[in-house]
Amino acid sequence: MTVMARPLGPVRLKRASPLTLLLGAVIFIFILYFLIAPSHTDFSPAALSGAASHPLSPPTSPFKKTVKKSKGKIAPPPVIHYNLNNVTITPNPIENRENILILTPMARFYQGYWDNLLKLSYPHELITLGFILPKNKEGNAATAELQKQITKTQKSGPEKDRFKSIIILRQDFEPPLLSQDEGERHKMQNQKERRAAMAKARNSLLFTTLGPATSWVLWLDADIVETPHDLIQDLAVHDKALIAPNCFQRFYNTEKKQMDERPYDFNNWQDSPTAQELASRMNQDEILLEGYADMATWRTLMAYLAAPGEDMHMEIDLDGVGGTALLVKADVHRDGAMFPPFPFYHLIETEGFAKMAKRLGWKATGLPNYKVCLLPPRTPPRPPLTDNHNVDDG
Amino acid sequence: MTVMARPLGPVRLKRASPLTLLLGAVIFIFILYFLIAPSHTDFSPAALSGAASHPLSPPTSPFKKTVKKSKGKIAPPPVIHYNLNNVTITPNPIENRENILILTPMARFYQGYWDNLLKLSYPHELITLGFILPKNKEGNAATAELQKQITKTQKSGPEKDRFKSIIILRQDFEPPLLSQDEGERHKMQNQKERRAAMAKARNSLLFTTLGPATSWVLWLDADIVETPHDLIQDLAVHDKALIAPNCFQRFYNTEKKQMDERPYDFNNWQDSPTAQELASRMNQDEILLEGYADMATWRTLMAYLAAPGEDMHMEIDLDGVGGTALLVKADVHRDGAMFPPFPFYHLIETEGFAKMAKRLGWKATGLPNYKVCLLPPRTPPRPPLTDNHNVDDG
Repeated sequence: MTVMARPLGPVRLKRASPLTLLLGAVIFIFILYFLIAPSHTDFSPAALSGAASHPLSPPTSPFKKTVKKSKGKIAPPPVIHYNLNNVTITPNPIENRENILILTPMARFYQGYWDNLLKLSYPHELITLGFILPKNKEGNAATAELQKQITKTQKSGPEKDRFKSIIILRQDFEPPLLSQDEGERHKMQNQKERRAAMAKARNSLLFTTLGPATSWVLWLDADIVETPHDLIQDLAVHDKALIAPNCFQRFYNTEKKQMDERPYDFNNWQDSPTAQELASRMNQDEILLEGYADMATWRTLMAYLAAPGEDMHMEIDLDGVGGTALLVKADVHRDGAMFPPFPFYHLIETEGFAKMAKRLGWKATGLPNYKVCLLPPRTPPRPPLTDNHNVDDG
Repeated sequence: MTVMARPLGPVRLKRASPLTLLLGAVIFIFILYFLIAPSHTDFSPAALSGAASHPLSPPTSPFKKTVKKSKGKIAPPPVIHYNLNNVTITPNPIENRENILILTPMARFYQGYWDNLLKLSYPHELITLGFILPKNKEGNAATAELQKQITKTQKSGPEKDRFKSIIILRQDFEPPLLSQDEGERHKMQNQKERRAAMAKARNSLLFTTLGPATSWVLWLDADIVETPHDLIQDLAVHDKALIAPNCFQRFYNTEKKQMDERPYDFNNWQDSPTAQELASRMNQDEILLEGYADMATWRTLMAYLAAPGEDMHMEIDLDGVGGTALLVKADVHRDGAMFPPFPFYHLIETEGFAKMAKRLGWKATGLPNYKVCLLPPRTPPRPPLTDNHNVDDG
């Protein structure tokens, strides 16, 4: 393998396997590692104890044992041990210096997403970021913008803003597009393909970035622009295997003539007898989808359970989860829970993941009153999902 | 997080989550990184171009860009880029400097396994080893012996023998034991639990060690003591998503009064109408198992298809695979294929993995005439599996 110096920019991975070409798995990949400090001796005590101390340390690497200097020269010992005896998954992640992996599939770059990320109060030297972007024109533009912000933060930003490490993966297949002209049934088929592609993207990102020292994985969509700054600590304190806040979208309410918010993530739900009955009559390749009038599931959607002024930390059980914002104990993934790109108990992607986690003995929890916000809709506005709670029995 | 220097030995990860304790996921973890050469300047050209050039590089790390020296001092650049533009998955893995991850769940350490590993002709600087061992008395002993051999090879062995990096994970749950006194039905239940535990172990190992630069994953059981030295190249040249050689066990044939060999891995099979019919009548938590008289599947077992003197590279299609020896394109795993610890289409562990890979669009291939050998049976000898091809229709 030759290693070439190149300016910033996506780099193509050559592939020879026809199977690979056929399936369009990840083929564009590159990784940026950034210095947290310009030299070893400049490390702050916090960085030394918390972050991977060597700039070339891997994204989810364990921490480096201090190398003894002899006569002013760094003498590498013949054997280096990483003792991960303090790698925990606890309700007090900061106190226990727990590593968080924030994973974001990104089709477009939004400045609001990055700005919000920078404001997270969890120690950044314990945070690794992982992104996967499609290999199309829009993905190229997003990658360029993302790299620009990364460079700004990691090179010239305040030390406290700098993340431990960052990985960017590129995919070679474009996400299937929803055609606006087609009928409801066809749109559901597109939805299935779109979510299968998203599931594969999530899996590529997950399998490639999860390391032995990762305690928590935070799935965070690229259009989440507003979360409490203590998001990670607030979710971790519940000590749940999977925990999802409630995602809302800000929009301009033309009737009220002011900004308003509406529920957004309909994949956080409690199962219903109707949904189970629908599933039982399906063939094994069919999936249940939330938000379609002709497939009213009558599930309890967390999106509608927010009660203004009530306890932010009120918990509910969930059977399906969304991926807009979701904190997962790394052990859930290490046990094997991934995002099925195929129908799994008639569920796919994040909803299938919740089911798979359940098959592995873990439970999902939702926080209906803990809000995170999506950016306002672009023009043309995102067509609102059909609220099947207002629909006659389909 | 404090980092402590400790002598060689397993290190406990503290865990506070009750869910975690309940499920007994991986909690003993430690990692050893080894120097390939005592200092940077001692790197051979091969090591420089092929291996992670820094001794602290992660197990599956991309390669380090050459750092320019200014006035004899290494000046770390503010931004390090790893350009993985030559990461491929091809039939010519050596030529393309492709990284192999060899993953081995290990209950006991066998010297023959390590000796055979050392003899693999694939460039060792492209090989990362990953092990997972149970946290019981036997696992402790195996870990100690494994560490001893690792130290010997990586510290004082010839440079060509040294592997790129090595990861050892410890599990906290003991594998369920098969009771010899119980009936056939109970033994099948035990088999299911044993394989579910093994599946979780494989998943922990896989999710923790797979990196962006990994091209191939070779699953190799800890009791495989004899393979062709070109095993990796020989399997990779077929350019298949999943490919399994045929595994045999040497034993002393008391009738022939000489060493003999017998087929061993009954999980490499082609499906049968009988097996599909059996599965269709099962409830969703039941699994099909191979080798039980009261569950004759009439599948075509690769174990019995070896034809002495025939082409070693003859391919057959497989529907189920075993884990004794199995080469997998890393993309199959990155798409999400893992080892289901729960019944997946009535299959579990490696057999379920083959089914899951198929659901993701990949195919499994077997090489009936390409042999790898298991160590001879210990005392008491391993009870031979019932050959359901010699059994009346059950």
